[in-house]
Amino acid sequence: MASHSKKRSTKAGLPPGTLVHIGKKKNVTPRIILLDYDDNGVRESEITTADLADKTRFAHGIQWINVHGLGDTRMMEQIGACFDLHPLVLEDIFNTDQRSKLEDYGDYLYVVLKIFSCEYNGTEERIDSDQISLVLGKNFVLSFLETDDTHFGAVRERLRAGKGQIRQSGADFLMYSLIDSIVDSYFVTLEQFDEKTEVLETELITHPQPSTLHSIYRLKREGVFLRKSLWPLREVISSLQRGDSPLFTRNTLLYLRDVYDHIIHIIESVESLRDLTAGMLDIYVSSVSYRISIVMKVLTVITTIFMPLTLIAGIYGMNFRHLPGLEWEWGFFVVLGVMVTISVGMLALFRWKKWL
Amino acid sequence: MASHSKKRSTKAGLPPGTLVHIGKKKNVTPRIILLDYDDNGVRESEITTADLADKTRFAHGIQWINVHGLGDTRMMEQIGACFDLHPLVLEDIFNTDQRSKLEDYGDYLYVVLKIFSCEYNGTEERIDSDQISLVLGKNFVLSFLETDDTHFGAVRERLRAGKGQIRQSGADFLMYSLIDSIVDSYFVTLEQFDEKTEVLETELITHPQPSTLHSIYRLKREGVFLRKSLWPLREVISSLQRGDSPLFTRNTLLYLRDVYDHIIHIIESVESLRDLTAGMLDIYVSSVSYRISIVMKVLTVITTIFMPLTLIAGIYGMNFRHLPGLEWEWGFFVVLGVMVTISVGMLALFRWKKWL
Amino acid sequence: MASHSKKRSTKAGLPPGTLVHIGKKKNVTPRIILLDYDDNGVRESEITTADLADKTRFAHGIQWINVHGLGDTRMMEQIGACFDLHPLVLEDIFNTDQRSKLEDYGDYLYVVLKIFSCEYNGTEERIDSDQISLVLGKNFVLSFLETDDTHFGAVRERLRAGKGQIRQSGADFLMYSLIDSIVDSYFVTLEQFDEKTEVLETELITHPQPSTLHSIYRLKREGVFLRKSLWPLREVISSLQRGDSPLFTRNTLLYLRDVYDHIIHIIESVESLRDLTAGMLDIYVSSVSYRISIVMKVLTVITTIFMPLTLIAGIYGMNFRHLPGLEWEWGFFVVLGVMVTISVGMLALFRWKKWL
Amino acid sequence: MASHSKKRSTKAGLPPGTLVHIGKKKNVTPRIILLDYDDNGVRESEITTADLADKTRFAHGIQWINVHGLGDTRMMEQIGACFDLHPLVLEDIFNTDQRSKLEDYGDYLYVVLKIFSCEYNGTEERIDSDQISLVLGKNFVLSFLETDDTHFGAVRERLRAGKGQIRQSGADFLMYSLIDSIVDSYFVTLEQFDEKTEVLETELITHPQPSTLHSIYRLKREGVFLRKSLWPLREVISSLQRGDSPLFTRNTLLYLRDVYDHIIHIIESVESLRDLTAGMLDIYVSSVSYRISIVMKVLTVITTIFMPLTLIAGIYGMNFRHLPGLEWEWGFFVVLGVMVTISVGMLALFRWKKWL
Amino acid sequence: MASHSKKRSTKAGLPPGTLVHIGKKKNVTPRIILLDYDDNGVRESEITTADLADKTRFAHGIQWINVHGLGDTRMMEQIGACFDLHPLVLEDIFNTDQRSKLEDYGDYLYVVLKIFSCEYNGTEERIDSDQISLVLGKNFVLSFLETDDTHFGAVRERLRAGKGQIRQSGADFLMYSLIDSIVDSYFVTLEQFDEKTEVLETELITHPQPSTLHSIYRLKREGVFLRKSLWPLREVISSLQRGDSPLFTRNTLLYLRDVYDHIIHIIESVESLRDLTAGMLDIYVSSVSYRISIVMKVLTVITTIFMPLTLIAGIYGMNFRHLPGLEWEWGFFVVLGVMVTISVGMLALFRWKKWL
Repeated sequence: MASHSKKRSTKAGLPPGTLVHIGKKKNVTPRIILLDYDDNGVRESEITTADLADKTRFAHGIQWINVHGLGDTRMMEQIGACFDLHPLVLEDIFNTDQRSKLEDYGDYLYVVLKIFSCEYNGTEERIDSDQISLVLGKNFVLSFLETDDTHFGAVRERLRAGKGQIRQSGADFLMYSLIDSIVDSYFVTLEQFDEKTEVLETELITHPQPSTLHSIYRLKREGVFLRKSLWPLREVISSLQRGDSPLFTRNTLLYLRDVYDHIIHIIESVESLRDLTAGMLDIYVSSVSYRISIVMKVLTVITTIFMPLTLIAGIYGMNFRHLPGLEWEWGFFVVLGVMVTISVGMLALFRWKKWL
Repeated sequence: MASHSKKRSTKAGLPPGTLVHIGKKKNVTPRIILLDYDDNGVRESEITTADLADKTRFAHGIQWINVHGLGDTRMMEQIGACFDLHPLVLEDIFNTDQRSKLEDYGDYLYVVLKIFSCEYNGTEERIDSDQISLVLGKNFVLSFLETDDTHFGAVRERLRAGKGQIRQSGADFLMYSLIDSIVDSYFVTLEQFDEKTEVLETELITHPQPSTLHSIYRLKREGVFLRKSLWPLREVISSLQRGDSPLFTRNTLLYLRDVYDHIIHIIESVESLRDLTAGMLDIYVSSVSYRISIVMKVLTVITTIFMPLTLIAGIYGMNFRHLPGLEWEWGFFVVLGVMVTISVGMLALFRWKKWL
Repeated sequence: MASHSKKRSTKAGLPPGTLVHIGKKKNVTPRIILLDYDDNGVRESEITTADLADKTRFAHGIQWINVHGLGDTRMMEQIGACFDLHPLVLEDIFNTDQRSKLEDYGDYLYVVLKIFSCEYNGTEERIDSDQISLVLGKNFVLSFLETDDTHFGAVRERLRAGKGQIRQSGADFLMYSLIDSIVDSYFVTLEQFDEKTEVLETELITHPQPSTLHSIYRLKREGVFLRKSLWPLREVISSLQRGDSPLFTRNTLLYLRDVYDHIIHIIESVESLRDLTAGMLDIYVSSVSYRISIVMKVLTVITTIFMPLTLIAGIYGMNFRHLPGLEWEWGFFVVLGVMVTISVGMLALFRWKKWL
Repeated sequence: MASHSKKRSTKAGLPPGTLVHIGKKKNVTPRIILLDYDDNGVRESEITTADLADKTRFAHGIQWINVHGLGDTRMMEQIGACFDLHPLVLEDIFNTDQRSKLEDYGDYLYVVLKIFSCEYNGTEERIDSDQISLVLGKNFVLSFLETDDTHFGAVRERLRAGKGQIRQSGADFLMYSLIDSIVDSYFVTLEQFDEKTEVLETELITHPQPSTLHSIYRLKREGVFLRKSLWPLREVISSLQRGDSPLFTRNTLLYLRDVYDHIIHIIESVESLRDLTAGMLDIYVSSVSYRISIVMKVLTVITTIFMPLTLIAGIYGMNFRHLPGLEWEWGFFVVLGVMVTISVGMLALFRWKKWL
Repeated sequence: MASHSKKRSTKAGLPPGTLVHIGKKKNVTPRIILLDYDDNGVRESEITTADLADKTRFAHGIQWINVHGLGDTRMMEQIGACFDLHPLVLEDIFNTDQRSKLEDYGDYLYVVLKIFSCEYNGTEERIDSDQISLVLGKNFVLSFLETDDTHFGAVRERLRAGKGQIRQSGADFLMYSLIDSIVDSYFVTLEQFDEKTEVLETELITHPQPSTLHSIYRLKREGVFLRKSLWPLREVISSLQRGDSPLFTRNTLLYLRDVYDHIIHIIESVESLRDLTAGMLDIYVSSVSYRISIVMKVLTVITTIFMPLTLIAGIYGMNFRHLPGLEWEWGFFVVLGVMVTISVGMLALFRWKKWL
């Protein structure tokens, strides 16, 4: 998690609106995919920034401009100019170390969201997050992704097929569909978490180990990270769903209310998880303590049984000339018998005291 | 608990309003029971969706359409069409992994509630929850249950018998009665919890074991689950009881205020339980620590007493030719006497120091 | 505490307004005491429900109807009819497992309060609570107690003696006086708590035992119970004191503000107590750990000193023919001297290392 | 702390407005000091209640009546009558076990504040609190102190010297000055706390002892006490500074905003302290655990080294006739050599394993 | 941290508005740097208070008066008089132990901020904070720094170069730029923190030591300090960004919204850190417990194996005349074989039981 704000400081002192990529750089060649649709059909094409102005000026339908990869500063400036975006919006798109947020610029809304992925870096799995920026205008939606588009496939499919009301509705419904598909992806992350938790719970009860402890701590750390990332979302969707912006129709607001419920559901699950990891840590500590106490009991029993036996052997090993029984034929066997009696008696005592 | 959001991800990417059953599937044949009542009497019949439109169009009294089992997607679509329900409502009825919520669609209210049951899966008891969806219209109430109807028996009985004001009042009072009977069922769950807590408290103080620890953790986990499930209810009943919707009469609002008090009472009890399980965990850890300290003391006492005795035996076992006392007739007995004296002295010392 | 919601479930499914006694039953014969007073004097009499209607219809002064014991359902119905109480009020009076609450029915206010008592059940002291219901009308106050009236003695005394402004003021001032006397009784409970806490603190520091641990847990549990019982009171008095109801005069509101301050004071003290019990538990665990570490040190010191001595004795007990010193006259004493030197040296080392 | 609500219960049942001294009694002879000042000068005199009415009726400047000692009930009643104070105000002045609070009686404001002092009772230092009551009228300020006036010296000095704007401003500025001097005194208490914390932190890291534990608990308890005492102050100053009362001029409100910032600063510091004591307790427990683990390692090393040596000695002490090497001249030295080799080897192993 | 409120008490009793330097004194010679700029260019000069009045009276552009070092009380009074500042503002500039705060004096805004630096005092690194006071008027900004100006270099650079919109905008944009550069510096502090946390996490998992514990505590303490310092900032920026003051233009408010997001981001990171340090402490305690349990197991294994062997040796060391096998030629080797068998058998048992 620590690495997420790593390069933020490199920007300190620059004037606001300077386009500097903050966060991990992804090696993705920037591409612009334009989807122009209305009730009748969908036109889909990969375009350059040069085409952009032409294509968008004379469009009649809804336009979805999907930008993959943030590497090209100049391209972004042209897009910004074309849609008349505030310099701060462009700056924030590049700064991929943002909180989720909603900013209302009057003519358009700017929304920042996060998408999670589990990455396995060789030794351990780590949850990582990508940033997705969405801009909703009167009849266009801009989406900016750090990497190739793997999240919006289902929405594009639905547009192409004309399933549901998506092609009959405005840009706000497209916006909702994109947000909904992102929020749906959180459920996948949550399920991975729940599975990890269940595996850990079982491990904890059947055979706790030091690695269990580190797994719990890792789970906790990831929970902290998820919580920090998801918490601001509540506010974003809440204020969208309250209908403060005229860009959303009443119909779409009903659907956003649904998304809001999902977000609350997810946040509450993450909070519960936090409670559970705290409980698991306590269980771990208790288990270790318990194991110590078991070992201590064994140790005590051994010591308690062998000490007197060893002492008896030591006593009859003393070199006194006048030591009763040494000369007696059965002396050794009697002493041996006493030893056995003592140990059996002690074992019985311990079993009776429930120490064994 | 982890399993509750398991299948949610299968829905990611589908258009909103798609009817997909989310959550555990219950093998229940869907049935529709219609209860048509007014001041004079009750007509009760099991109907098909074909009858539904006829029966409901010309009804004069209050209608309660009680649907058991959610397996039949087509049936639900017909019911939705008949009562003009929003696609999202139908989607939410099928998605049994919802938070409790209240949605006001103007003409009707949609309420999602949870009902708890203790299931014993062979090795351990687990709290599980079923979802109940209620729709209140001007003169009808729809109720959707995942399984056979075992919760609304008392309400039906009261309708048949005409006890209380239920038959004289409107659909809102029926709605209240159904919610009230669900909230009453929470008290049963709470009592089971309280009993488990008492049993655990006694076990904890009389003979704590590792299984006690797991029971406490399980209790904690169930408390987290209950809390997560009940918390949103507060808001649901609170906004019902504030009377935001014109569907509720002043008279029914008074009764809802009562339900609200019950909900608060239940939530506070669950919160208290949470405090107590935390305390129990601490007690467990302390008890284990205490037992270790007891064993350590025994160990020390044994070691402290036997060590010098064994040393003395060892000393008189050395093979020096000139060792004073070896030849003496009473040497052995004097040494033995010294040993007894030392051990008795030490025991006295330990008892005086309160170590024994 | 667990037992407090025990019998709540028996009521599940009954129509609202059904009079069923919930909570522990107290064997108290129901009695009605009427106190009719104005500026000039007080008339006090025990009456039956038959008298009630007569006596109250033609009364000119303020009437205080004090009902002890809740056993008689019919009597309650007659009182309800006489003062035109809502069925839910009667139901709540019988349900003694309520949260403290205030309900405004327009013509009258219904207030539920709790009173605490320490009961010693043979093995341990337990805090128990009784419910007191108060109804304030234009010129009457109804009070319902589960047991004999031991709480309102002082108020009655003041009424008889005409001390203070109580007889010059309206029913609202009587209501205030009753609430005030209940809140004052909480200070007594709080003081008992503070005493127990002090005793435990001393015990914890001077000689912690397992029973100390159980006392702390019991204190914690009682704190949780008190907190749960008192918390809703804050809201009750707060909304009384805000003057939402026209039944209270400005003069009485000033006095209620005072009661509100007392309640906040009490709740804050209970919260502090909670902090302290958490701290005490930590102290207990630390003390036990510390004792283990002390014992471990003793054990180590013993082992460290005796081990080499025993080895030396063992070495000179080996049966080698050629063992230097065995034949020497002073051999034994030299070895003994070496042993003494080693032990003294080690003791010095340990003392220097602060291990002893 | 527990003792603070000790005598509160003695008042239960008395009519409101009864003047009973609650809290610890201080043996202070009650005195009244009148300070009458305006732009031109200050008249200072000790007066009796008889003078009071005369002196105050015909005053033109601002009057500050400073009462030390609360022993004389009659005197208080006369002061109350003279300034037309509500009976509840007089009652609250005597009840020195109040929360800090602000009560607006229209013509005058009544403010209760706390002042802290560290008292050393022979065995331990304890934080104690005195109550100060302030009443602000149109052109007078009343201040009631439990003990001799040691807190307002600087304000009196400023009045005499005419420094700052105090003599040019109204009674509200005097009120502000008194509150400010009380809040300033909290910084002194806070600094004592910070010092104790630093001392404890050092002790904790260099040589933790059981007494350290008790000091931490005491610090925690005092933190709980301070927090409980200071928290309500936030509200008091906040509502003063919001300017709800016409008694305060805009100019003085600016100064009160400053006091409010100080209060927040102090409360936040106390809250931080609470976090730190929690951390210190954890550190203590960890330190003790660590020390046990160190001792355990020493114990294991000793046992591991001496056990085989003692066994070898025991083996060669067996009385078998045919035991190889016993007759050999160098047998003893070879065995001794083996013993030394084993112990050196083990020490090397342990050092390599970082156990030593 | 404790030292931050150290000298606050020295001020107790002084009249408000008295200029006394509170906090650590920095040995910096006070200097005043005037930056006078408009669209066309920048005039930069070091001036004295004498010049101040002249220079500022006839200025047409925006003026930034940057004061380094707070040592000179008289100079401050002159500046105060020149810009008509309230005495409380001057007092607060000198009192460098303030919370971050915003005060609106109508004509100008007064903002207090904190800047952090890591100081290495020989034995340990400590986070320290400097106070920066900013005053925004209609066309001037005053900035007061405790030490030499190292924080505003980038802003001055941008002014000189005329980069961005800073020279085209008003004093409010300069104010925003200064605040932004301070907030940016927090990211640097946060990154240092994140690095420390990562280093500690690794240390904790690979080789926890007592010094790790102290580092965690130090991290916790610094987290508490940062949190306390940053928390009030949220409110400051929030109320700036809400646009309550007419001094800010709509354009600048958009930029302030951005700063607000940064602050929230930073505070949430500090909060997460707090969660993590708590988790790290638990891990540390668990690790120590685990290590004890490992050592206990080794100890038990050793004891369990050697005890019977030593006993056997002791038995055959007894001096009985009639001891079977002593005379037998292979007796010794058989006994030795038995010993080896026992130890191998026990090792196998322990390995099977997973104790080794």
